[in-house]
Amino acid sequence: MRPYLAVDWGTTNLRAWRVGADGVVQDERELPLGVSQIGECEAASVFAEHVRPALHGEDLPALMCGMIGSNLGWRVMPYLDCPADKAALAVHLGDVGERVRIAPGLRCAGITGAPDVMRGEETQLIGWIEMAPDRGRGRHIVCHPGTHAKWALIVDGRIEQFVTAMTGELFDVLSTHSVLGADEGEDDAKAFDAGVEAAGDGSALATRLFSTRARVVGGDAPASSSRSYLSGLLIGAEIAALAPHFGAAPESQIALLGAPALCAHYNRALAHRGFHSTVDDGADAALAGFNALVALGALDAS
Amino acid sequence: MRPYLAVDWGTTNLRAWRVGADGVVQDERELPLGVSQIGECEAASVFAEHVRPALHGEDLPALMCGMIGSNLGWRVMPYLDCPADKAALAVHLGDVGERVRIAPGLRCAGITGAPDVMRGEETQLIGWIEMAPDRGRGRHIVCHPGTHAKWALIVDGRIEQFVTAMTGELFDVLSTHSVLGADEGEDDAKAFDAGVEAAGDGSALATRLFSTRARVVGGDAPASSSRSYLSGLLIGAEIAALAPHFGAAPESQIALLGAPALCAHYNRALAHRGFHSTVDDGADAALAGFNALVALGALDAS
Repeated sequence: MRPYLAVDWGTTNLRAWRVGADGVVQDERELPLGVSQIGECEAASVFAEHVRPALHGEDLPALMCGMIGSNLGWRVMPYLDCPADKAALAVHLGDVGERVRIAPGLRCAGITGAPDVMRGEETQLIGWIEMAPDRGRGRHIVCHPGTHAKWALIVDGRIEQFVTAMTGELFDVLSTHSVLGADEGEDDAKAFDAGVEAAGDGSALATRLFSTRARVVGGDAPASSSRSYLSGLLIGAEIAALAPHFGAAPESQIALLGAPALCAHYNRALAHRGFHSTVDDGADAALAGFNALVALGALDAS
Repeated sequence: MRPYLAVDWGTTNLRAWRVGADGVVQDERELPLGVSQIGECEAASVFAEHVRPALHGEDLPALMCGMIGSNLGWRVMPYLDCPADKAALAVHLGDVGERVRIAPGLRCAGITGAPDVMRGEETQLIGWIEMAPDRGRGRHIVCHPGTHAKWALIVDGRIEQFVTAMTGELFDVLSTHSVLGADEGEDDAKAFDAGVEAAGDGSALATRLFSTRARVVGGDAPASSSRSYLSGLLIGAEIAALAPHFGAAPESQIALLGAPALCAHYNRALAHRGFHSTVDDGADAALAGFNALVALGALDAS
């Protein structure tokens, strides 16, 4: 393997690593330079002026994933259709010049008829598969919490299918801009669990959400508990709707992959509903994914 | 009957009428003085200085409903538990002095375990029952669209049960503050219908909502159609979740009650899903409700 720069370049932030010939991280940075934070057509200069120098990687090839491959990023990378494995990703990288290659996003049939899409999580999912020997065989359900949470079905090392739930964004806009009164409040585990419970089978979400307010004005709960209740309700509704979609039932295992603090909330909600879970850090998985793609020749002749 | 002032005093606006001894409106005003627009403890002075004089009603008793009976309004009125009919409302008015009485809100068991609540719609529902002779007998389903839509089951002239869906508020916060890109765009009936269709059985709403974006970035629809699609999706999901809750199936009749423009959208979505519907203006119903309460003695000795 050769040394390279890896960049998981998202909407708000980017995370970048300098990786040695042994695949081990030599240096890393997290920068508030996500594609929504920089100007149109600025990705190349941001990379040249802020990312390469920060990692002392002027002479290294770079591999990227995430929203940097969208219409807000460096250049639009086509979506690959599912099922897709690491080999498919490795041969469909886009070369944008300057020794930089970008992973394609993934697309699959969505539950509404419209296609569903992801950018960035595919590289983490490929990495997640690499992180333990048993993950390349059989059937696994992976949940990637976030602004747009992704649930993926992994079959024999392929990303077979996935579904998005905009749970994180619903939490953000409802806690900040709605009458639910959930804009502040300490973490309240009891209220979180009550929210998970109130999610029921995940149906009638617009009705269940209103219970965040009704339980307060009805005198059953303090307003300070609304934030945790709303979080539990939205996460609980996501689990109730999407776990059965991939055939998971209580006692099934669901693998969490993402930011540790957010995974901890999901872990609690999954346990409350009787699921078993494992937790892996999304940054570790992204790096494992980049390494897997490089090992397959992703940066050859760059 | 005696002449009086009627005020449907909501969160954003208030609508006030001077009603003659024959129950007929002599004058009316709509003012941007909802309880969220005025200061704490200002309801009495707003009423004395802006509403009474505007309607030349200095010497008349007044009957009010809506958020004016909440903790943001004049004084908190307790909630009456369902089932409740006009007679129950008439005997549970709160007297706040100055010849002003306020209707109580209603409360019933919600689908999450937390109670559900309404303030203001109860008076419109009571009025809706009065507006046609057949509505006081048998079983009727009434949908009241709005920021917090209410679906009510009317049985033999009683409000038997109701459910809230915060559809209007979800539309407002998601169209204004989310990545769905639905903040502008002309009415697009085809996109609205596609949204109603994409609502499916109303499950997995956080996933279906993401299709608003996925259909655009996937190249299947223009961004300008997102607003109508999102509207159809949220209204369709509300219908899919709540119509069965009260036992309605295609070919059933669902009565719409509320603002005419919003009812027109619901009417289209109901028809798309095979329901029959009638439409009544919420303002007409509020007035009929006030008149019914006054006829029962709501303002006696005031």
